[in-house]
Amino acid sequence: MRDGLSAEDIALLRGENYGYLVTLNADGTPQVTVTWVDASDDGHVLINSAAGRRKDRNMRRDPRVAVSVPRGGDPYDWTSINGTVEELIEGDEALAHIDALSRRYDHEPWTPAEGQVRVIYRIRPDRVHRYR
Amino acid sequence: MRDGLSAEDIALLRGENYGYLVTLNADGTPQVTVTWVDASDDGHVLINSAAGRRKDRNMRRDPRVAVSVPRGGDPYDWTSINGTVEELIEGDEALAHIDALSRRYDHEPWTPAEGQVRVIYRIRPDRVHRYR
Repeated sequence: MRDGLSAEDIALLRGENYGYLVTLNADGTPQVTVTWVDASDDGHVLINSAAGRRKDRNMRRDPRVAVSVPRGGDPYDWTSINGTVEELIEGDEALAHIDALSRRYDHEPWTPAEGQVRVIYRIRPDRVHRYR
Repeated sequence: MRDGLSAEDIALLRGENYGYLVTLNADGTPQVTVTWVDASDDGHVLINSAAGRRKDRNMRRDPRVAVSVPRGGDPYDWTSINGTVEELIEGDEALAHIDALSRRYDHEPWTPAEGQVRVIYRIRPDRVHRYR
């Protein structure tokens, strides 16, 4: 049975909270990066990155990821999600999404970088752990 | 060539900073846990856990781990280490170590739990990434 995101998890992912995203390198070792996070209305975790980055290459090769999101960086208040990248979305939707994240986290519009292709990764939660 | 911990990394690991430890499950998926961290004088990352926990079982089966340590939870100031568990230390040394960590993080002595076997994992850094 799969776990789903609770309303509280979704609010956490939609707040000004950063995530620790783990992707798997080609040799199976984990890579951790700190990233903006989001959640869709239907309970998927959303990450936005740029094509060609290591985490992008990793998620295209192996869709199994983990994302831990502490509330305001609090080590005793977090949700950690193991999930599977189900879909990659590029184009206008990905650009509008990174702009929304930039406004949420940096309180300013996103400045597109020349030649950069933004990508939304839609992650289906498989297991969810919480610590409060 | 292996990366080593800098003096600044060691100070970070010896401060009151929490780490995001990634271990690998049997199926290769990553598990993330928030944990106390430490560094040895010779530049190894030290984690202290209890025998039988999932991260303990994972590190015994697959010694490849990653640890990300944000300074005071700051998502824009962190060191992330990919490493290999080289040695497990149990007994008095592991108990003294968890007591020292408890005093550092919780500002009180460690209360040993009946039947719990503490373990120090000595992790050799293989690659170190920094974001400041």
